[in-house]
Amino acid sequence: MKEKVVLAYSGGLDTSCILKWLIDKGYEVIAFIADLGQNEDLEAAKQKALHCGASKAYIEDLREEFVTNYIFPAIKANAVYEGRYLLGTSLARPLIAKKQVEIAKKEGAHYVAHGATGKGNDQVRFELTAYALEPKIKVIAPWKTKEFLEKFKGRSDLIAYAKDKGIPVKATASKPYSTDANLMHISYESGVLEDPKNPPTEDMFEWTKSPKNAPDKETKIEIHFKQGIPVKVVNKEDGAVKEKPLELFQYLNKIGAENGIGRIDIVENRFVGIKSRGVYETPGATILRAAHMDLEGVAMDREVMHLRDSLIPKFAELVYYGFWFSPEMDLLMTVINKSQELIDGVVNLSLYKGNVNILGRESPNSLYNKDLSSMDIAGGFNQQDSEGFIKINAIRLMAYHEIGKKTGAKHG
Amino acid sequence: MKEKVVLAYSGGLDTSCILKWLIDKGYEVIAFIADLGQNEDLEAAKQKALHCGASKAYIEDLREEFVTNYIFPAIKANAVYEGRYLLGTSLARPLIAKKQVEIAKKEGAHYVAHGATGKGNDQVRFELTAYALEPKIKVIAPWKTKEFLEKFKGRSDLIAYAKDKGIPVKATASKPYSTDANLMHISYESGVLEDPKNPPTEDMFEWTKSPKNAPDKETKIEIHFKQGIPVKVVNKEDGAVKEKPLELFQYLNKIGAENGIGRIDIVENRFVGIKSRGVYETPGATILRAAHMDLEGVAMDREVMHLRDSLIPKFAELVYYGFWFSPEMDLLMTVINKSQELIDGVVNLSLYKGNVNILGRESPNSLYNKDLSSMDIAGGFNQQDSEGFIKINAIRLMAYHEIGKKTGAKHG
Amino acid sequence: MKEKVVLAYSGGLDTSCILKWLIDKGYEVIAFIADLGQNEDLEAAKQKALHCGASKAYIEDLREEFVTNYIFPAIKANAVYEGRYLLGTSLARPLIAKKQVEIAKKEGAHYVAHGATGKGNDQVRFELTAYALEPKIKVIAPWKTKEFLEKFKGRSDLIAYAKDKGIPVKATASKPYSTDANLMHISYESGVLEDPKNPPTEDMFEWTKSPKNAPDKETKIEIHFKQGIPVKVVNKEDGAVKEKPLELFQYLNKIGAENGIGRIDIVENRFVGIKSRGVYETPGATILRAAHMDLEGVAMDREVMHLRDSLIPKFAELVYYGFWFSPEMDLLMTVINKSQELIDGVVNLSLYKGNVNILGRESPNSLYNKDLSSMDIAGGFNQQDSEGFIKINAIRLMAYHEIGKKTGAKHG
Amino acid sequence: MKEKVVLAYSGGLDTSCILKWLIDKGYEVIAFIADLGQNEDLEAAKQKALHCGASKAYIEDLREEFVTNYIFPAIKANAVYEGRYLLGTSLARPLIAKKQVEIAKKEGAHYVAHGATGKGNDQVRFELTAYALEPKIKVIAPWKTKEFLEKFKGRSDLIAYAKDKGIPVKATASKPYSTDANLMHISYESGVLEDPKNPPTEDMFEWTKSPKNAPDKETKIEIHFKQGIPVKVVNKEDGAVKEKPLELFQYLNKIGAENGIGRIDIVENRFVGIKSRGVYETPGATILRAAHMDLEGVAMDREVMHLRDSLIPKFAELVYYGFWFSPEMDLLMTVINKSQELIDGVVNLSLYKGNVNILGRESPNSLYNKDLSSMDIAGGFNQQDSEGFIKINAIRLMAYHEIGKKTGAKHG
Repeated sequence: MKEKVVLAYSGGLDTSCILKWLIDKGYEVIAFIADLGQNEDLEAAKQKALHCGASKAYIEDLREEFVTNYIFPAIKANAVYEGRYLLGTSLARPLIAKKQVEIAKKEGAHYVAHGATGKGNDQVRFELTAYALEPKIKVIAPWKTKEFLEKFKGRSDLIAYAKDKGIPVKATASKPYSTDANLMHISYESGVLEDPKNPPTEDMFEWTKSPKNAPDKETKIEIHFKQGIPVKVVNKEDGAVKEKPLELFQYLNKIGAENGIGRIDIVENRFVGIKSRGVYETPGATILRAAHMDLEGVAMDREVMHLRDSLIPKFAELVYYGFWFSPEMDLLMTVINKSQELIDGVVNLSLYKGNVNILGRESPNSLYNKDLSSMDIAGGFNQQDSEGFIKINAIRLMAYHEIGKKTGAKHG
Repeated sequence: MKEKVVLAYSGGLDTSCILKWLIDKGYEVIAFIADLGQNEDLEAAKQKALHCGASKAYIEDLREEFVTNYIFPAIKANAVYEGRYLLGTSLARPLIAKKQVEIAKKEGAHYVAHGATGKGNDQVRFELTAYALEPKIKVIAPWKTKEFLEKFKGRSDLIAYAKDKGIPVKATASKPYSTDANLMHISYESGVLEDPKNPPTEDMFEWTKSPKNAPDKETKIEIHFKQGIPVKVVNKEDGAVKEKPLELFQYLNKIGAENGIGRIDIVENRFVGIKSRGVYETPGATILRAAHMDLEGVAMDREVMHLRDSLIPKFAELVYYGFWFSPEMDLLMTVINKSQELIDGVVNLSLYKGNVNILGRESPNSLYNKDLSSMDIAGGFNQQDSEGFIKINAIRLMAYHEIGKKTGAKHG
Repeated sequence: MKEKVVLAYSGGLDTSCILKWLIDKGYEVIAFIADLGQNEDLEAAKQKALHCGASKAYIEDLREEFVTNYIFPAIKANAVYEGRYLLGTSLARPLIAKKQVEIAKKEGAHYVAHGATGKGNDQVRFELTAYALEPKIKVIAPWKTKEFLEKFKGRSDLIAYAKDKGIPVKATASKPYSTDANLMHISYESGVLEDPKNPPTEDMFEWTKSPKNAPDKETKIEIHFKQGIPVKVVNKEDGAVKEKPLELFQYLNKIGAENGIGRIDIVENRFVGIKSRGVYETPGATILRAAHMDLEGVAMDREVMHLRDSLIPKFAELVYYGFWFSPEMDLLMTVINKSQELIDGVVNLSLYKGNVNILGRESPNSLYNKDLSSMDIAGGFNQQDSEGFIKINAIRLMAYHEIGKKTGAKHG
Repeated sequence: MKEKVVLAYSGGLDTSCILKWLIDKGYEVIAFIADLGQNEDLEAAKQKALHCGASKAYIEDLREEFVTNYIFPAIKANAVYEGRYLLGTSLARPLIAKKQVEIAKKEGAHYVAHGATGKGNDQVRFELTAYALEPKIKVIAPWKTKEFLEKFKGRSDLIAYAKDKGIPVKATASKPYSTDANLMHISYESGVLEDPKNPPTEDMFEWTKSPKNAPDKETKIEIHFKQGIPVKVVNKEDGAVKEKPLELFQYLNKIGAENGIGRIDIVENRFVGIKSRGVYETPGATILRAAHMDLEGVAMDREVMHLRDSLIPKFAELVYYGFWFSPEMDLLMTVINKSQELIDGVVNLSLYKGNVNILGRESPNSLYNKDLSSMDIAGGFNQQDSEGFIKINAIRLMAYHEIGKKTGAKHG
């Protein structure tokens, strides 16, 4: 009896060739197509998989789960990698791999396969998730397999193989860079982008209008949060209201894209030790992150914020590196959730030609309000207390002054 | 003989009344006017101080020192407080206080005085600096002094006192908020801004054009860095070149302001435990920070970056709280300087209606380049190595899987 | 009608004089005596309070609560301040202040008072707790009150006042240092200890035998933990078993003290910016901490441990500074509790002349066991995977090598 | 012409078989024997290497360099892994690998080889160092090589091969655990120690006397530090003085061992994701670490200490994982060195049956001294300042109190 393998299948040239190659190698292949909102014809992909010889093909709609359990937790954490990347791909991979493992268990398959290369982050995210959720699973990664690598040295080898095997190949010219999309973002890398000196060309961007072509009139919205999670978006212009997670997020993507929001271009550090240049469009999450951080300004205690902030680089690193399902992430998520208990309220924003501007905010849990800022509840803020506060804080500095003279030049 | 006091003097109503009040209290007052690029008539302020009875009045041009020793180190550190505030006021205060203490020493004065209130951050920054640099100094802070507070309960008391004492009072209506400016930024707070729900009105902004009124054509520039310090700005449109620190920074302020760059509106946490709402315009530093972070992307090692990033919230907190002159800041500055040894190169940017867009970057110390990314120097990046890399990273997760089942629901 | 004040009362000379002085000032004084296991005659103290004029005197037995809600959480966190101090006093103060505020509420008192000085940590711990739990409370701290300080310049003034007011004064000579005890530890400071060069003399130690006089035979015990909390101690010599928190902890104190365990002598940094020299005896907690850390070695995931470890200095700082009741401590406690979910098991120890030696450990959740270490569950640990693991980890270092040459001398 | 390989050679069975096997494989083998104070007959090992067919054999005395550039920096950092392990082996490996690479360069060898297994930390430390210092180097690690692993499945295969090839095999029975020694420590692992429940037996310990057999009289010493580095040890009993780094360290090892100091037994987390049980004897470094931390208590500013402390887990992790030669370690070393500029002084200690007791300390840079603690230099510590200090610190907690009620149960 043949061993079963569940292949993460996209319908593209690479994974179609991999599908066929796995069959050639003697496996029964079950294709798994994850719907993460990438806006492709998944049903056509399914038919293609079956056409190529897959014994079964699953399409799983993971969009709701992606928004609720992956994107929103990242928003709650203000997660950002290396100061700029919002982790759109990093968040999607563990969900795909989780579902893939679930299908493998259901189908009694001992193998999972993916089409990620051996130089990237995605292979790590796929495989760490698979091993974390099912240690006995076996992973087939053709792009790290000697035999496969020797057979397929470039795109032309894939095309030749496809033609030979009767796999339909699109006539469309391939783009001079590679791209990947899900609900959260679309990314561009390699090809002409490989030289970090070259700017992306305007025609590359598929989602967002250029700020130059965005409307001359701003779009005003309000976003409501409950425990750090967006629960309502209101368009102040036309009164549109969105409350369901998926719908809300898609709507923010839409109006963000129209207003030219969420483009970045960075050189980032991969987990495998290579620097990589990436260009991203992340309209909705860019808006949400700005709104969420703003709301925390009024509703989060200072020390909670500073302590939490010290953990976010680690949080983002774990997501980026592929440790979504790990004991350390469970620990950090506990912190994040605790920190969000009081993050309720509304933020007003204007979206305008690439800018997300804060217009004001309100929270029922505001630690900033008239009663508190005048401190009348506690007998008032006595300005004279500040004298003692400062003097005690200076004690250490005064002591150091005497000794510090010995160390010579200071930075100041 | 009278005790001498060096008063940080602005020429405004508050410090003029304080000057006179100090004289009434029996002090000899030496006025000290710091030129930090606030664009006010400092010579007029000097004359006013003398007119009010100051025995001497100093104007000190601190602009070059401010850019070189305060702003640029903050840029090197990518310093940002609570994710958004670039620390324009926080950086200026220790420099003013340092100079004030120097004048006090030179003049044999045992006292320094300032006009900051007892609820703010500036009092702390002034006084910690003074005590750190001269533990024997005595600080007079009238706004924390019972007698002064009882005498001056509001602006009308100050005006009445000024008229009574012959202090010139400007006829201009006061603004419905308070403002403070130096080379790095202009800030707005209190008054109508006290309700965090109210957006700032467009007429409030003194420096930057509204993105809506900014040019329809982008401004393209390049910024050159040497060891993390900006050393040259080139305007790609008109070929203008700026290399001297002060001139360079002023130029970036100018073109940033024209392009509507650097506005923020936040609720921040003061050191004295109060939340405060602030609106800021910081055009030049916003551009520099974006460019500097981008260059680090190509020229800084990943682990150096992640380690450094974990220290920046602390760095910003120290600056914001007033610990510029402290042993812990000396320690952090050592880290920052070390981290910048290789941050050389050029970043291309476009400035457009509030946006700072990166167009590409180049570094002689790039850790991203063709030779390295193809890894030929080291025998190449072997994609098959990634299999072992991932499997070893998974060992821990697989072990935890067995035990983790006991803890019940996971976050994912 | 008189204002009521709840005074934290010890029965000693200081708080007796304060009690009387408060009555003289026109307050009705309610004495509050906290039983934290300090082994003093609390009933006598109560009678003395009433004799001095207190309108009421409470003795509250807080021992069980102290062990369960204060000491054990610190053990779970491996809490240690500045690498050595186990926080015995720091943990007790918030509990005393919490109970004091509860009595104030019950009695309708608007004031609480304490006898801590203005240079120490305890004033901060008392008052921050009081304000955190009841912002409207008013604190009377005579040792920071000008009038009191002027009246009582030294011990002789207190004695004279006591005699004058009919307060019984013990004839015993005062010790050449001050001391404070509770269930967790006994501390010594000031007096002859003020010179950090002077070692404590052997006759100072009240709890522990000198290691030199401790038994020549070791005491073997086992300690059982459940979710990081000690739930059973078994003496392997005589079979004694202790399971109730208070009893268990007292027992460890007893056998720890007999074996000369838990003495330290340090110079520590107070929250008010002064360095202070302290000598402590903490037998039971020293044993528990060693056992707990050891058990975590087998049952805690590496990354959870390293992440948690990075937070412990902050945890200890918060406890030491008096922020037990604070939002940031709530956040950290959430982390600690999460990290302990799997810390179950037994540690064998021997206690011998000051040494706590680990003899072995066992955990039902061990991440170290034959099956896992041989990794058979996951198809085995493939040593060849390590080659790829290391090569990928080296990629970054190899790239840096080329660039790093430019930076000149390295540390190695 | 044969390729040259530099083999890290110990003289033992494993590396002798590896030496011969490499020759069989067609390499010219240069044996490299590092003298790190392991107290073995290195000249005999050299002769054995040549006897086995090595074309050359180097003995390099690295002891002085090990103490000065590896052990002392770790002491300056108070480095400790997972709270207990002092990193004796971790510090030695990069030095061995560095010298090995130097010999390879000198000899024109493209290969280095070592006898570390594929499950341990040492392979990583060796190889990361080699790649970091010479990216072009090729590493041969027979215990990760399929062919070698298949040939040598156990000790008996090695013995058979040795006999067959004329490699002398010691008749001595092998120990029921493996051991490794250098100047800093001796370690024991595997074999009977693999069950973490089994305590080590007394006859296992090769360096230290059991505390039970250690002298009944304590040994009193003083240790002098200059910038955090030990520069003199004085035995207060017999007046012995040691000042040279190597001699000083060996002396502390000697008197530490006599007094039963420095044994630990832990379960630690390896970089490859496995938990491992280790027993260590580290007498000298245990004494130095205690003394160094104590001196920092008087001479280091609080905030410098707390900031530095937050970095030490990372420092220790880097050392343990093998990243001694890395840009991030260079960064951390810069911090450590800066933090030690003022750590001068003398610590008095007593060594007694496993205990290192502090008897007092003195520093010319003490931030604790009479003038400073009474704060007379700065006009005195005004106890009334503490009132304002505490009230301002409480502002935040009072504000949170109102809001915090909503979150329900608190930890306290």
